[in-house]
Amino acid sequence: MAVGLIEPDSLMPVKGIRLSAVVAGIKKNKTNDLVLIELAEASQCAAVFTKNKFCAAPVNLAKANLASAATRYLLINSGNANAGTGEQGMRDARQSCQAVAAHAACDAAQILPFSTGVIGQNLPVEKIEKALPEAFAQLAEDSWLIAGRGIMTTDTRLKGISRQLQLQERTVTVTGISKGAGMIQPDMATMLSYIATDAAISNELLQDCLQEIVDVSFNSITVDSDTSTNDACVLMATGQAGNEIIVEKNDDYIALYNVLREVSLYLAQAIIRDAEGATKFITLEVKSAATTAEARQVAYTVAHSPLVKTALFASDPNWGRILAAVGRAGVDFELEKIRIYLGDVCIVSNGGRDPAYTEEQGQQIMNQAEILIRIELETGKQSARIWTSDLSYDYVKINAEYRS
Amino acid sequence: MAVGLIEPDSLMPVKGIRLSAVVAGIKKNKTNDLVLIELAEASQCAAVFTKNKFCAAPVNLAKANLASAATRYLLINSGNANAGTGEQGMRDARQSCQAVAAHAACDAAQILPFSTGVIGQNLPVEKIEKALPEAFAQLAEDSWLIAGRGIMTTDTRLKGISRQLQLQERTVTVTGISKGAGMIQPDMATMLSYIATDAAISNELLQDCLQEIVDVSFNSITVDSDTSTNDACVLMATGQAGNEIIVEKNDDYIALYNVLREVSLYLAQAIIRDAEGATKFITLEVKSAATTAEARQVAYTVAHSPLVKTALFASDPNWGRILAAVGRAGVDFELEKIRIYLGDVCIVSNGGRDPAYTEEQGQQIMNQAEILIRIELETGKQSARIWTSDLSYDYVKINAEYRS
Repeated sequence: MAVGLIEPDSLMPVKGIRLSAVVAGIKKNKTNDLVLIELAEASQCAAVFTKNKFCAAPVNLAKANLASAATRYLLINSGNANAGTGEQGMRDARQSCQAVAAHAACDAAQILPFSTGVIGQNLPVEKIEKALPEAFAQLAEDSWLIAGRGIMTTDTRLKGISRQLQLQERTVTVTGISKGAGMIQPDMATMLSYIATDAAISNELLQDCLQEIVDVSFNSITVDSDTSTNDACVLMATGQAGNEIIVEKNDDYIALYNVLREVSLYLAQAIIRDAEGATKFITLEVKSAATTAEARQVAYTVAHSPLVKTALFASDPNWGRILAAVGRAGVDFELEKIRIYLGDVCIVSNGGRDPAYTEEQGQQIMNQAEILIRIELETGKQSARIWTSDLSYDYVKINAEYRS
Repeated sequence: MAVGLIEPDSLMPVKGIRLSAVVAGIKKNKTNDLVLIELAEASQCAAVFTKNKFCAAPVNLAKANLASAATRYLLINSGNANAGTGEQGMRDARQSCQAVAAHAACDAAQILPFSTGVIGQNLPVEKIEKALPEAFAQLAEDSWLIAGRGIMTTDTRLKGISRQLQLQERTVTVTGISKGAGMIQPDMATMLSYIATDAAISNELLQDCLQEIVDVSFNSITVDSDTSTNDACVLMATGQAGNEIIVEKNDDYIALYNVLREVSLYLAQAIIRDAEGATKFITLEVKSAATTAEARQVAYTVAHSPLVKTALFASDPNWGRILAAVGRAGVDFELEKIRIYLGDVCIVSNGGRDPAYTEEQGQQIMNQAEILIRIELETGKQSARIWTSDLSYDYVKINAEYRS
């Protein structure tokens, strides 16, 4: 089940972007597992990648290619992560890019490769090579839904969103898709997410913008504290909307930034709503902290606590577990000043249960599918907000049976 | 189920220690929930406590009492943690100690109180007061098994062990009991553990010794990364074995230290073997690390990974999850040099799957109930070893249903 997540009926095309998804046979179940995204010439492309030391071969190659040439194609396969595959993994990733370049008559460095799926198995490059002619033949502007479905692994819902805004009386479109349901605590970037706009914007500002929106969206979610080896988030701008190119942080930039932020926040939260086994969508808000880092540390400690997560699954207002998690977060505060809320209900004040709190109030909040946990540290003025899911039987089931 | 953990048939008395356990009615199921431990006069007592900021009222009071007077009694209740209870909690803990002191005609500061159970409910002191006459009447030297059972909460097995050694041709006995099955990542001390010896040893050395053995035993286990609000480990020495008092780290100290270390390691591992829902007992060994802290960081990152834990539950040699956890541990190393082993089987070398590794080898190790995961970082000469359990349906079940 997915918590309050409805699949989009349609996604808007972005001028200058064409997509396709085909069956290469990498996944066992014969669904689309190879996605190709084409960027028109003169497009700008920015990306952030996982910080996992064991990052996958395609991550290393995509980073290098992004730095050395203008990106024309993204090649994404699901069903195999090409991670933990050593030198062979790098050869396979390179060979995939060369195959795309041969078809497109461009340079191999203009291809960014992405892989998602099981870690530690060699990528079946020959299957990818065989499927490429069909992938090129199918490229179309209106294939965002098909591409979104093609990158899914344990996801139960397609995750995508479109928004439009006006810049200098030109209509600018932003469309994004993402995938991810487990092994989720992005660190720098996340799972796989592709966001495109036809706005014209300089590469430098595009990269700035991506980093800012990722920090408050993809880098603020966690399912299970596990940072994937393959996380990546790509932001593309084709410049075909007709607006004058944005080269400074002016009103146009802010307008575009706000829409991009909304899109990435939606996509990041969609991952949590569809998290493996999730029955609850939890917002953790830490306020009045000394630093943002401390606020995030407290939020993540609560979000990762298996005991808090199982209590949320059981709809049990066992708030002592929240208190215990806050207490071990390694952040300094005065017991008497801290306040903890479930929704609008104060549960902890003055070092213990709030005098006005009743179990009935707690139960009422816990019965909801979307729950806000707010912690006020009263040690400063910083705050942080992160999103997470509960820990259910199905999380264990999905992850115990993943490869079988 | 408990992994390879057999309850002791008997535990040896320790001269100078008497124990009892009675039904005070704090637990709902009318089993023994109040334990009294008496130390003979002139006994030495050392303790380490949880570092959780929200530590329980009895923890605060026990610390203060231990520092101010010679301990004569430990009063331990299960079924209620007296944590998150603010000022009322401190009053309740004090009143419990005063009640014991009145019976024993000693000072209230000579009582150390301990509580374990649900967080956030007031301690029913009147029930404790009513049960105390019976608790005093039942005090006996041979009641270690009864006391061990009286401190259990979600434990499925009594955890206890006895060992003897010779010091200056005198027989010295060490007996210990512990409880704990969830909310387990001790930080400084753990759950509840009581170890007693009749050896004569100075208080200073006793505290030193406790800190050293706790670091390699109770502070090296984790079930779910949750540090309890009530963790405590107490080491008592009555001095009645007849050995000359140990006042320096001589051969006698080392002989006693080794036995105490063996006892605390057994008790710590017993907690993991009986961890909530555990079907596997996992040893994580990190070698050739730059610092012990880095070795522990890598070990704990793998031990806390829900994806690694569910793969272990499923007996799935999905070693990519181990590699991904090592990669996100935040410790620097060279991908090409690191090696990861399942048991004696090398799974990762040279940045990817070891060439000689086969899935059959991995499956054979994963089918076992006790599994060693070894990670060689090759960044220095330090190492660490910690113990953990897997993540099963039953962990979720036990913790989703704990209060219902």
